[in-house]
Amino acid sequence: MTDYANRALLPGGLRDLLPPDAAFEASVVSGVMTHFAAHGYERVKPPLIEFEESLLDGAGAATSSHTFRVMDPLSQRMMGLRADMTPQVARIATTRLAQEPRPLRLSYAGQVLRVKGTQLRPERQFGQAGIELIGSDSPAADAEILVLSAESLMVLGVPGVSVDLALPTLVPVLFAELGITGALAERMRAALDHKDTAMVADAGEATPLLRALIAAAGPADRAIAALKALALPPAAAQERDRLSRVVDLVRADLPGLALTVDPVENRGFEYHTGVGFTLFARNIGAELGRGGRYLAGGSEPATGATLFMDSVLSALSRPKAKARVLVPPGTPRATAQAIRDRGFVTVAGLEPDSASTAEAKRLGCGHLLGADGIVEIH
Amino acid sequence: MTDYANRALLPGGLRDLLPPDAAFEASVVSGVMTHFAAHGYERVKPPLIEFEESLLDGAGAATSSHTFRVMDPLSQRMMGLRADMTPQVARIATTRLAQEPRPLRLSYAGQVLRVKGTQLRPERQFGQAGIELIGSDSPAADAEILVLSAESLMVLGVPGVSVDLALPTLVPVLFAELGITGALAERMRAALDHKDTAMVADAGEATPLLRALIAAAGPADRAIAALKALALPPAAAQERDRLSRVVDLVRADLPGLALTVDPVENRGFEYHTGVGFTLFARNIGAELGRGGRYLAGGSEPATGATLFMDSVLSALSRPKAKARVLVPPGTPRATAQAIRDRGFVTVAGLEPDSASTAEAKRLGCGHLLGADGIVEIH
Repeated sequence: MTDYANRALLPGGLRDLLPPDAAFEASVVSGVMTHFAAHGYERVKPPLIEFEESLLDGAGAATSSHTFRVMDPLSQRMMGLRADMTPQVARIATTRLAQEPRPLRLSYAGQVLRVKGTQLRPERQFGQAGIELIGSDSPAADAEILVLSAESLMVLGVPGVSVDLALPTLVPVLFAELGITGALAERMRAALDHKDTAMVADAGEATPLLRALIAAAGPADRAIAALKALALPPAAAQERDRLSRVVDLVRADLPGLALTVDPVENRGFEYHTGVGFTLFARNIGAELGRGGRYLAGGSEPATGATLFMDSVLSALSRPKAKARVLVPPGTPRATAQAIRDRGFVTVAGLEPDSASTAEAKRLGCGHLLGADGIVEIH
Repeated sequence: MTDYANRALLPGGLRDLLPPDAAFEASVVSGVMTHFAAHGYERVKPPLIEFEESLLDGAGAATSSHTFRVMDPLSQRMMGLRADMTPQVARIATTRLAQEPRPLRLSYAGQVLRVKGTQLRPERQFGQAGIELIGSDSPAADAEILVLSAESLMVLGVPGVSVDLALPTLVPVLFAELGITGALAERMRAALDHKDTAMVADAGEATPLLRALIAAAGPADRAIAALKALALPPAAAQERDRLSRVVDLVRADLPGLALTVDPVENRGFEYHTGVGFTLFARNIGAELGRGGRYLAGGSEPATGATLFMDSVLSALSRPKAKARVLVPPGTPRATAQAIRDRGFVTVAGLEPDSASTAEAKRLGCGHLLGADGIVEIH
């Protein structure tokens, strides 16, 4: 298969997964969901398409410009093709499952579609698999989501899993406490986004603090120590203490996990209301997933994480394929079943003369069922 | 959850699958795909959306009126949301995998969307899981597809699986040989569709034969015997002999399978070029799947079958849920893992006082991890 053929047949950013990738993706999703289920996360499955206003409500508004729309001929209302499953799961939690006890643990896996890809993620369709923990404001909830999503990657065998922690609520709280508002706040937000230590000189008395926040970014233990050394006003200090607590809890569960903290990181976390994080793997440029705290249905404390299955797959090597045995036509079903039960894949010959070594080779079978049993073909 | 709530939140014919149904559906799809894979069927995964003209090519044309369209902003061409995965798999087989050895065995599973539901199938989104066997014209190929799809339902535990066989090519061939053409052919086709033995009186000399064909419908052994007793012209006889051969091969593999034959059935098989079939289960009105012979890419002999996962699920009882254990906060990760390894689901308490019997009950946990190990709650 060439890229040219791919381009000619399908719209840009869409692709066919071929053997063995399609089966591998399914097995990876299944593994992740099994991991989540063992921790009490129960699966939900929202539809691919729903009314635009419920799909783009709350945090879903961020995906508005990425969302394909179609008219519903039944209701004459506009529907959207989901570009993100998270708002759908929040909708389910706060409506259909509003009466279920809290904290509510839900998981999901499915495909999403986007009108346009980005430079970092040119795909317009990809799989998401994730978890949501709804109804708890506890740091233990933040830690559980981070640990489970990172651990699910480790269990799959993703090499060099690392997590970048962010605290998108810290800077707004700090600015409010320091009286940094209006145009100055916007300029300082941009300066922090670009880690521009020169530009923060305009912040007056707050300049040393903002420089220290930029400098604090790095490995979690050092970053937390640096943040603890700062004289933060009360609300900002509370944010920092919460982050520190989450890091402690994660460390206790996954002591080997590479953790970094960037206290001024904000981009991509605009809808988050507390600790957020991004999952990476060694040698993979793209994010493998992200998560963080938000308000489900606009008011209920929640935290969750989503894995991007295309990036996860790119971080994994393909497993060895099962051995294939060509089985002559007329082989009793029980005989072939016994071979499958031994872990082989059977490929049935359909024509009377089809059980030959040459035919097995042609069909990619390394084995042939002969009169004396299974013969390996060299 | 009430039906009312369902209607209020989502467009008609679309729904949320909630716990435990969503997880159960995923496990059933996984089981079916594992069964197919063991027989050499390799999974492909086409995108949810592709160019209208490739989606609606050939057999896909049948789904044209069911297909949602959106404009692709990249290419300015129209795209369709798949209403059926079969044409996509045929496209993959005859383009990207054109150079792969034949017969080519492919499997697939995914969601499809339809503009409108039907009376029998009001859902506008449902899961398909299926197999395609491409590049063989052999009756053994027809039998393999039928056996595998029926057997996959049996392995899942679907009670009373039965298969209705059709031979949509028989009547056209017979009409051509008997010189039944034009308006008479249309009227006789309608008469056969309605099993109207009075109306076939207009067929002149062919009337007894058409009546005998209608009367032959029933359990496969009796139907095949009745067909063999008929003096059919050569091409029609060849069709009948092929059907008989397929029945023999299916009987040899699955002697217990309930098989019926309706030699004049045509509806729903318009795009088929040979033996077709429908899968049913005891007490379930809807079809669980269907399959049959067709031409992939307009010229390559192929046969395949699709299961409709919503109907398959309705035929199965839900498995027993795993026992849930509430685990106090601060429980070492290895301790909780050991509990999961014993087959329990663990639910972590998030607040310091959360590991009580009352809390376990509130969270639907039948067990609690105490100082002396796991305690069952009564």
